Amino acid sequence: MNSFGQLFKITTFGESHGKAIGVTIDGCPPGLSIDEEFIQGELSRRRPGQSAIVTQRKEADEMEILSGVFEGKSTGTPLMMLIKNKDARSKDYSHIAEKFRPSHADFTYQKKYGLRDYRGGGRSSARETAARVAAGAIAKLFLKTLGIDIIAYVSQVGDLRCTSDYQRLDLSLIENTPVRCPDLEVADQMINLIKTIKKQGDTIGGVVTGVIKGCPVGLGEPVFDKLHAALGNAMLGINACKGFEYGSGFEGVTMRGSQHNDIFENKDGKITTSSNFSGGVQGGISNGMDIYFRSAFKPVATIIPEQKSVDTSGETTTVSGRGRHDPCVVPRAVPIVEAMAALVIADFILLQRRIG
Amino acid sequence: MNSFGQLFKITTFGESHGKAIGVTIDGCPPGLSIDEEFIQGELSRRRPGQSAIVTQRKEADEMEILSGVFEGKSTGTPLMMLIKNKDARSKDYSHIAEKFRPSHADFTYQKKYGLRDYRGGGRSSARETAARVAAGAIAKLFLKTLGIDIIAYVSQVGDLRCTSDYQRLDLSLIENTPVRCPDLEVADQMINLIKTIKKQGDTIGGVVTGVIKGCPVGLGEPVFDKLHAALGNAMLGINACKGFEYGSGFEGVTMRGSQHNDIFENKDGKITTSSNFSGGVQGGISNGMDIYFRSAFKPVATIIPEQKSVDTSGETTTVSGRGRHDPCVVPRAVPIVEAMAALVIADFILLQRRIG
Amino acid sequence: MNSFGQLFKITTFGESHGKAIGVTIDGCPPGLSIDEEFIQGELSRRRPGQSAIVTQRKEADEMEILSGVFEGKSTGTPLMMLIKNKDARSKDYSHIAEKFRPSHADFTYQKKYGLRDYRGGGRSSARETAARVAAGAIAKLFLKTLGIDIIAYVSQVGDLRCTSDYQRLDLSLIENTPVRCPDLEVADQMINLIKTIKKQGDTIGGVVTGVIKGCPVGLGEPVFDKLHAALGNAMLGINACKGFEYGSGFEGVTMRGSQHNDIFENKDGKITTSSNFSGGVQGGISNGMDIYFRSAFKPVATIIPEQKSVDTSGETTTVSGRGRHDPCVVPRAVPIVEAMAALVIADFILLQRRIG
Amino acid sequence: MNSFGQLFKITTFGESHGKAIGVTIDGCPPGLSIDEEFIQGELSRRRPGQSAIVTQRKEADEMEILSGVFEGKSTGTPLMMLIKNKDARSKDYSHIAEKFRPSHADFTYQKKYGLRDYRGGGRSSARETAARVAAGAIAKLFLKTLGIDIIAYVSQVGDLRCTSDYQRLDLSLIENTPVRCPDLEVADQMINLIKTIKKQGDTIGGVVTGVIKGCPVGLGEPVFDKLHAALGNAMLGINACKGFEYGSGFEGVTMRGSQHNDIFENKDGKITTSSNFSGGVQGGISNGMDIYFRSAFKPVATIIPEQKSVDTSGETTTVSGRGRHDPCVVPRAVPIVEAMAALVIADFILLQRRIG
Repeated sequence: MNSFGQLFKITTFGESHGKAIGVTIDGCPPGLSIDEEFIQGELSRRRPGQSAIVTQRKEADEMEILSGVFEGKSTGTPLMMLIKNKDARSKDYSHIAEKFRPSHADFTYQKKYGLRDYRGGGRSSARETAARVAAGAIAKLFLKTLGIDIIAYVSQVGDLRCTSDYQRLDLSLIENTPVRCPDLEVADQMINLIKTIKKQGDTIGGVVTGVIKGCPVGLGEPVFDKLHAALGNAMLGINACKGFEYGSGFEGVTMRGSQHNDIFENKDGKITTSSNFSGGVQGGISNGMDIYFRSAFKPVATIIPEQKSVDTSGETTTVSGRGRHDPCVVPRAVPIVEAMAALVIADFILLQRRIG
Repeated sequence: MNSFGQLFKITTFGESHGKAIGVTIDGCPPGLSIDEEFIQGELSRRRPGQSAIVTQRKEADEMEILSGVFEGKSTGTPLMMLIKNKDARSKDYSHIAEKFRPSHADFTYQKKYGLRDYRGGGRSSARETAARVAAGAIAKLFLKTLGIDIIAYVSQVGDLRCTSDYQRLDLSLIENTPVRCPDLEVADQMINLIKTIKKQGDTIGGVVTGVIKGCPVGLGEPVFDKLHAALGNAMLGINACKGFEYGSGFEGVTMRGSQHNDIFENKDGKITTSSNFSGGVQGGISNGMDIYFRSAFKPVATIIPEQKSVDTSGETTTVSGRGRHDPCVVPRAVPIVEAMAALVIADFILLQRRIG
Repeated sequence: MNSFGQLFKITTFGESHGKAIGVTIDGCPPGLSIDEEFIQGELSRRRPGQSAIVTQRKEADEMEILSGVFEGKSTGTPLMMLIKNKDARSKDYSHIAEKFRPSHADFTYQKKYGLRDYRGGGRSSARETAARVAAGAIAKLFLKTLGIDIIAYVSQVGDLRCTSDYQRLDLSLIENTPVRCPDLEVADQMINLIKTIKKQGDTIGGVVTGVIKGCPVGLGEPVFDKLHAALGNAMLGINACKGFEYGSGFEGVTMRGSQHNDIFENKDGKITTSSNFSGGVQGGISNGMDIYFRSAFKPVATIIPEQKSVDTSGETTTVSGRGRHDPCVVPRAVPIVEAMAALVIADFILLQRRIG
Repeated sequence: MNSFGQLFKITTFGESHGKAIGVTIDGCPPGLSIDEEFIQGELSRRRPGQSAIVTQRKEADEMEILSGVFEGKSTGTPLMMLIKNKDARSKDYSHIAEKFRPSHADFTYQKKYGLRDYRGGGRSSARETAARVAAGAIAKLFLKTLGIDIIAYVSQVGDLRCTSDYQRLDLSLIENTPVRCPDLEVADQMINLIKTIKKQGDTIGGVVTGVIKGCPVGLGEPVFDKLHAALGNAMLGINACKGFEYGSGFEGVTMRGSQHNDIFENKDGKITTSSNFSGGVQGGISNGMDIYFRSAFKPVATIIPEQKSVDTSGETTTVSGRGRHDPCVVPRAVPIVEAMAALVIADFILLQRRIG
């Protein structure tokens, strides 16, 4: 429910406008150097207010480690990270206490639990993902020691698509632009589109592409915990994610087997494939090639224009957004995608160790 | 690993050419009438040899219940179903004992486990999905008692796409054609395409669309077990599945929030939405509208023409398929998609009961 | 590892001398009134310094709820409780940084993890149990709404044994004496014994008896999650616990079946048993009678007199305890036993709801 | 529920008088030589009819492996073992269809599930433990490759107690007597007692002592999956088990810390302890010394003399046992205790590998 992973397991807690959010990692390998600056840096990539094209809410997202680290190293015991909520402004949300905002989780939470913390969306707020980014940063530190690198970028905003594959892009440019698209020409168009949308009080969707490099052969469980299924589960668990594909994905269905099959080659003693439509995963298990995938994000549900809706007593009403929401979620989704991917890979690394 | 679900939990076992495959359901609600004919019927929808456009292997897939049913009703104890393997023909596969077939799981299994049952793909064979279909049939029987209906159909083969939405199709026609596409005109084109591909010894991909009707409000856990994430995980766990989207999916990224938001309405005391881009799930929780999703399947890896590859000692070699493989997996994937969806919904029904 | 329970699941974190300890409850039913004073009261029953016969460490154990409660009620989302560490005195422990204290967890932690937070035992300290007591208090609040009552008391200290069964004791007297034995005569003897032992700088073991009243019929899973096995697992998970028995326990092995069998009776329409050697559980499932059990606790490992040992480099050394440890753990173990029992019963209540 | 273990995970199924019982092991390490004769031998140690002091039912308990083994070695995929039921005699049990046998699970099953397979106790029958013994035999084969040895024996029947510790007994004699007590003098007394009891149609309880030798340092999780708690959970999950203690156990509560503490010593470079009241586990983690424990078993509930009871409609009735039950369960419990201990240790071996 609020836990993710089997051996590198995280449990998150916290509501958007409660006292704090946070995460406990159970299973972080002992002896890992915990670089708090790196973790804070990852949180900054996700935090609101970082650029003109994201929500202007002010949240510092200062993380504090309360357990599981001793003299700078993980101890193998639960590593707990706390992020206090500061910019609460609870009164902003009292107007929606009795209303179900369209395409938000207000209605479903109310029906599922019989009550809800309506302040800022409570637990359904994307604020919860800060906890995942913090946990993912620890996973990244672990994966770095194994030479595994996880990178994500914005490959589509609305109709604007980055047409080159990830192999042809200079991924070192991702952070050079607030929209996090390494094709800087497309990035500029995306920024302009987002700004236009924002002026209209509207929102737009997008796609984040993820790439995992250096993954060893053998990760993933063949039947129900296939590596790509775990990645898909992870991505679809991010707020607003509506779709996931890896390797050739939906486009691969139009191909013939003779085109789609990845031919094995012996490259100086290492078995590789000449193409990679498999996306680095065969039979649910990593084959040592790059793993790449795409995650679709819908337009944010909060918009400024008035919309019709119903209230908690079933009466017709109207809802209108107030300022400070994201016109497009994907620039800030990039570090979340990376975090979730890192958590999956870290977990499967530990799982595979049981085979020895 | 080989288990799926939390409270309605299945564990499958068995290799393609071992003695048997099967499944144990732990958590089937007691008192459920077990209709064995229905289960067998579901298995027949998946079984090889059922039509001219699927593999011509002869497998009866006769299922026997060995436990958990007493006087025709489930007892709440583990319900075990066994399917013996008959048409083994193990010698057919000896030629691949030392070779890694392109885009199969031979290489990754060998590296992960250090050895593998190479006969017919062993555990990585799609044969394992028969066990899922049997378990899914039990889940369907349970869901039927609650008025929940799960339907899947082929909506794309190669470039041939069923352009109408599921709402505009007559879903009662699905089983009228071996390709399981309810748009019978497109179905005929699909069949012709598959036959052509088959003659070439090649294969082609496709898409299966799933629809869940009658799902109550409140299913799904909001953070890491979102209902759609569980469905995605389930679909991506089916052999050859490369992508999953629900509701507006990948196309939804091009929409504005003002277009995409589903407006709540009070319809004679029941809260519904005027559109359903959310795909029946908001904040990870079902909202009572139809749940619909699409799953992409790649072209089957086994093809007749000779392909280059490497063998287990790293030497260059060639591989060529022998008869009796599916030219296109999607017609037989339909009951598997339904089974996995049924397992997910049954599990979340039981999970939600804890809230009462 | 650091989680307990399936549907009412807790995850604890924190070291004895880190910044804080705490617990996240995932699965607390929504709508439950959260009485913070009650929780704090339970923590006070466990806290050091509460009487002359327990450790004189000063720990206030002030608990703060950071999430999962809104307007005084649980929301069904993770309920996180934090207890900050105050009386750290880390320097007290520097002398054991390089030494393995006899019968402590220093050696095994060092070997398991390769490093350890040696301050006050770190994670292996009984301090962690405060988090369980806080979580158990929430479970108790839930069980109270169902009429289920959980009581524990000290029934043995060293050789001093409370000879009456729980049925013949006035359990309302438990909190009238710091040793928490409702037989006040024996209680006085126990207190004297503990004081004598304490003067010697030594320690002594004891037994805590637990009773669960009002448990409905049907809790417990028959094969691997038998209700009594879950209770045993819970008790044996408490620091220093060396044994568990329920119902007739170890003494029951000397009985004949004809003596031991509990005869069913129809008491005004309710089926009860005339005796209760079964301890309220038959076939792993509660039968509606009182559940009772005993947990054995060894003498605390920290003693004042010098003991021989080895250090982390394998050299022979000596260790001697410094002040402020418990001469006998059982008076403070009583609320921990109750908390763990409450967590088990709450979890099985939710599990049973799946059957409906 | 019907699964046990986290990484070496078993799921059992089957009723006493259904078609078959069996077990699926998910997580057996690949490449393990599977000695079927050894497994069958372990089953024979548990099977009815093996001697004059156990039930005279005729069950061959022939086990067949249906998956997960290829060319004599485990493949890492689910290893399924089936044992068909032969000596069913279902009519024997029709007389209890409507009655609740005292201290059996009839009443609790009926109330929990609303129906039950009453034939021979159905799922609550000890017959289910054959599946555990089969799985435990695989675990033993795995542990043997690591030099870990698991031995159990009968140390008490009724009042007859084997007074020597396990260290002073010649454990190679265990199988020399049908009662499985290596103190052959006491064994003879036990046999006589059991025969007397049997003639009376009555039953008697007993204690099984278990010893684990060669366990490496570091197994066990410190907080909620302490090694001894997992062992206790495993033992208490065996039918008729009423208590568990390890190391000094219940007797240890009378000791002083200064007596009970195990002093560390450096023995030729290996750190050991001079005494072993800890029972090989400190802080929940193995310390490399022998692990030893005791499990109490109540007298079997089935007895010949007529007993009062109630039937399913609440009416007063009488029940009397028919032939072929065990007068004392412990001789046949020995291989079950070993099997469950082996499953626990195998699981924790795999869990510890994640730390590497």
